[in-house]
Amino acid sequence: MKRIISHPRITYGTSLKEFIDFYRGCAFGAARVSEAIEIYFEAVKNHSLISFGLAGAMVPAGLRTVISDLIRDGFIHNIVLTGANVVHDILESLGLHHYYGIEGNDEELRDEGLNRIFDVYVPDSHFEKLEEFLLEVFSDLPEKTDFISVLRAIGERIRDRNSILKSAYDSEALLLCPGFMDSMLGIHFWLSAQRRYVDVTAELRTLSERIHEAEKNAAIFIGGGLPKNFILQSMLISTKEGFDYAIQITSDSPQWGGLSGATLSEAKSWGKVKKDARFTTVYGDATIIFPLIVAGLRISLEDRK
Amino acid sequence: MKRIISHPRITYGTSLKEFIDFYRGCAFGAARVSEAIEIYFEAVKNHSLISFGLAGAMVPAGLRTVISDLIRDGFIHNIVLTGANVVHDILESLGLHHYYGIEGNDEELRDEGLNRIFDVYVPDSHFEKLEEFLLEVFSDLPEKTDFISVLRAIGERIRDRNSILKSAYDSEALLLCPGFMDSMLGIHFWLSAQRRYVDVTAELRTLSERIHEAEKNAAIFIGGGLPKNFILQSMLISTKEGFDYAIQITSDSPQWGGLSGATLSEAKSWGKVKKDARFTTVYGDATIIFPLIVAGLRISLEDRK
Amino acid sequence: MKRIISHPRITYGTSLKEFIDFYRGCAFGAARVSEAIEIYFEAVKNHSLISFGLAGAMVPAGLRTVISDLIRDGFIHNIVLTGANVVHDILESLGLHHYYGIEGNDEELRDEGLNRIFDVYVPDSHFEKLEEFLLEVFSDLPEKTDFISVLRAIGERIRDRNSILKSAYDSEALLLCPGFMDSMLGIHFWLSAQRRYVDVTAELRTLSERIHEAEKNAAIFIGGGLPKNFILQSMLISTKEGFDYAIQITSDSPQWGGLSGATLSEAKSWGKVKKDARFTTVYGDATIIFPLIVAGLRISLEDRK
Amino acid sequence: MKRIISHPRITYGTSLKEFIDFYRGCAFGAARVSEAIEIYFEAVKNHSLISFGLAGAMVPAGLRTVISDLIRDGFIHNIVLTGANVVHDILESLGLHHYYGIEGNDEELRDEGLNRIFDVYVPDSHFEKLEEFLLEVFSDLPEKTDFISVLRAIGERIRDRNSILKSAYDSEALLLCPGFMDSMLGIHFWLSAQRRYVDVTAELRTLSERIHEAEKNAAIFIGGGLPKNFILQSMLISTKEGFDYAIQITSDSPQWGGLSGATLSEAKSWGKVKKDARFTTVYGDATIIFPLIVAGLRISLEDRK
Repeated sequence: MKRIISHPRITYGTSLKEFIDFYRGCAFGAARVSEAIEIYFEAVKNHSLISFGLAGAMVPAGLRTVISDLIRDGFIHNIVLTGANVVHDILESLGLHHYYGIEGNDEELRDEGLNRIFDVYVPDSHFEKLEEFLLEVFSDLPEKTDFISVLRAIGERIRDRNSILKSAYDSEALLLCPGFMDSMLGIHFWLSAQRRYVDVTAELRTLSERIHEAEKNAAIFIGGGLPKNFILQSMLISTKEGFDYAIQITSDSPQWGGLSGATLSEAKSWGKVKKDARFTTVYGDATIIFPLIVAGLRISLEDRK
Repeated sequence: MKRIISHPRITYGTSLKEFIDFYRGCAFGAARVSEAIEIYFEAVKNHSLISFGLAGAMVPAGLRTVISDLIRDGFIHNIVLTGANVVHDILESLGLHHYYGIEGNDEELRDEGLNRIFDVYVPDSHFEKLEEFLLEVFSDLPEKTDFISVLRAIGERIRDRNSILKSAYDSEALLLCPGFMDSMLGIHFWLSAQRRYVDVTAELRTLSERIHEAEKNAAIFIGGGLPKNFILQSMLISTKEGFDYAIQITSDSPQWGGLSGATLSEAKSWGKVKKDARFTTVYGDATIIFPLIVAGLRISLEDRK
Repeated sequence: MKRIISHPRITYGTSLKEFIDFYRGCAFGAARVSEAIEIYFEAVKNHSLISFGLAGAMVPAGLRTVISDLIRDGFIHNIVLTGANVVHDILESLGLHHYYGIEGNDEELRDEGLNRIFDVYVPDSHFEKLEEFLLEVFSDLPEKTDFISVLRAIGERIRDRNSILKSAYDSEALLLCPGFMDSMLGIHFWLSAQRRYVDVTAELRTLSERIHEAEKNAAIFIGGGLPKNFILQSMLISTKEGFDYAIQITSDSPQWGGLSGATLSEAKSWGKVKKDARFTTVYGDATIIFPLIVAGLRISLEDRK
Repeated sequence: MKRIISHPRITYGTSLKEFIDFYRGCAFGAARVSEAIEIYFEAVKNHSLISFGLAGAMVPAGLRTVISDLIRDGFIHNIVLTGANVVHDILESLGLHHYYGIEGNDEELRDEGLNRIFDVYVPDSHFEKLEEFLLEVFSDLPEKTDFISVLRAIGERIRDRNSILKSAYDSEALLLCPGFMDSMLGIHFWLSAQRRYVDVTAELRTLSERIHEAEKNAAIFIGGGLPKNFILQSMLISTKEGFDYAIQITSDSPQWGGLSGATLSEAKSWGKVKKDARFTTVYGDATIIFPLIVAGLRISLEDRK
């Protein structure tokens, strides 16, 4: 028996550290939050290469700075994210905000030019400014390029230090968006030139080489989709035997059979996660869960130096 | 437009108050955590009668003291909970712990006499001691009784101040378990006497009268099931026009059509939630979410006096 | 390796039997549908006592006749259901329909006296007629009674053969509603007499004795809640070693830790499901899944005589 | 009020047509199945261009022939699918089966060279044969290519008429895999040449042109992910005002904020679904739900000629 459920207490004076320790006294999701913190902490302590998969509308929902800080502080080394998260990072970089809590049904929103992402809203005008920005970047590209370079070119032009793209650029973190064409990036990439020949092997080659060279590898997934699969398959071809550490935050569930909800244990059967890896899945809403893990990591790193 | 998504930051020095404020800068579940805190805070400030529905194995999972403290501090006035949560509260009161993180499949656990609740374990021997305790209480009961009185009789005998039953007894909070017979309580209630005539109207009468008399009413639901329905129907017969405040934490979802996942808006159509009520639903794991709401409430109550 | 995924085909001429066989060629939920049919078939063939737990608003959603036919045909022997399902069965028995697909938000519905259950609507006037009916039944009750008898008294008065209560009454199936007071039944039971002394041990005693006497026991659960727990705990005290067969249809998921989403394997650790039992869980919407299982059962019983 | 819930009946003699009509008498998911059939039927009758998004491991789970038949019969005109679904379609085309129902934990499976997808298993040796096949195809490619052409080259070589790729090739259906590199296709594409310059605009250009030219457009989504987003964004740049018809089958849920679970109503705010479109979402397991919709479509098309 590993430990007793301790039924901890929360009072007015509880510190953030104590609050996060609270979860260690519980079971279910709470226990998994504290395990995720331990795993992240151990991965950092052991100088793991940390690959981070980001799906879901996490930038629109407000996690942008949390993630860019992790990149700048060296707690994320590779980030694979959906096109939408890149697009919304650029919007914020251009000073174009996301809004929360508008009233109205979807037909009214359409008339008002407000695009809805659950409870987040983006005006049409934002996307017009995005277009201007992207067309300028894309007009400068060399004929032979790849998406890693394109994204670095974007990151280079961004001035906002809180940008994920800018932070990756500044920190020489590898930022990959293999679904580049599946987003407004892709739309404008096409609109700016009818044909675009891109070296599509760049992402897989670069990430798998990095993983191959690392002594220890960690994977952190928010959501599933292409980022999760891409990181896992990069491990597959790296000649390594799987991730040493893995954390998954998901609102999906294993029983539907898709990769997004698949257990990390399933990944062992493929050799994507090591047989003796430390891993956990925290189920629920990443906007609630991920900040807790980040806070716990930062406290652990300082207090357990 | 209500507000801008502010993309807040988490650093080593972030206090618990700042951490909880973080959620207010986000959307999705994070925003709902901060709304739930505001609603709970306003409900307390406005001297609402707070009815709390507790389903799911929240006591085994470690939320026992958090809840009993809320009762003692006057932030829960009526608590409707499942029989299992009562049973596991009694176990802890008898010094019989819950355990986290045992290895083994369910057939091996059976052989070892370990009963599993997801990742929480309870040895058979605990239930034997529970039986002794309950039989003693039940042997003393008057012939004509009701479950409110039975549970108060149990609460009276418990010495552990962290007990939910003891806290309700000490605080004159109303503690209801309309599914009393659907638990080990019920099993031993029956085993201790082949026939038991109980006034089954007591719970409905007492709760609806309390709600009727209160100027403002608030409902907080962890999970759905019988506790949620019972609190909502007690409102229905109270002659009030619905709850003024309502918070729901659920891992269920509206599209399956059951009450557990039903929106609080749906409850408006029944007159169970007021048309102009303040309410929110936070989706996910209550062991992660509820502690955040409690911490936020406690900070708000102190800092915004 | 059990079998090859056969990628079956659906054409215009496909019969219902062939359609259901389709699922046997697949994996995921489809495979589980066909397993559930096999288990139900085997349970019937082996003369098992079949206990059926019904939670969720399945009667309002349209599964009433499917269930009452199963009772009449001897494929359900004990039924444990929520108070709401009883109430809505009575409404239909009184010729008071449920409606599908109304427009309007919940505040408007409130003004129009339409009570919403996801996409099902019940007018206030229905509940007034229910009240009349129930008060008449309740006024006739003996002083000492129990809920099994009360529900039989209701079933006796119903003339609609499609009624679940009537079918149970006619078939001498045991119909239990341990959450009787957690429904409009309970409301009117109270309103018709300020105090009601009821033998609350009747359900547990009767169901556990039936289970005890049966050679083979099967459990079928639609949803979780009180019906699932009540059937499982009745097994626990029956001195049997667990259900021989078990089928669960649920939209819940194990990772939240509650009983409703708990695996049937977990029930083995408690001795509620036998170590060598045949069991399966089908995840999803029971209004879609259960009719498939019933159709498959009926075809198997005829064609494999 | 649209209609009365009719509580239909299932007997031994029920035909497949009657069985599917059953759902029309219910609410919740059942009602949505029948709506999805109506929408698909109407889309076909009105000569809509039907774009089909396929995510989740639906080919491994057994839906391959159902889908390839829909392509051959002209009920799917554009198909956007994940790389994994392409890979597993090729495996089957090479006579390499998927298996269901193996015993053993993931570490043992690893040792045995069995890769797990929930309850489906694929031996390592299959992937070796896939590699041979793909390397042969890839070695023949012209220097300047795009993924549409590559997939057509694969489809051309496949002899199995039940193949999705072959059926698309034969029927001149547009088959897109914008996440080509996010799969074993991508791995071998890279391994067969260290640099690969591909016209990445081909998919977006071709699909949006097709949508632009169609008088009526329909979208059918199994799962979300890249296929759903790609089809929706192709509509966005087509200058059309949104899909006229849309059907979504998903195990995801709106409240998590991601696109996969987003309502089709949300897509209206973006102009991706028309304001007056006919659309529905069926929640649950597509291996159960999609065959029902296909059967219903086929019956409607024949019987309502």
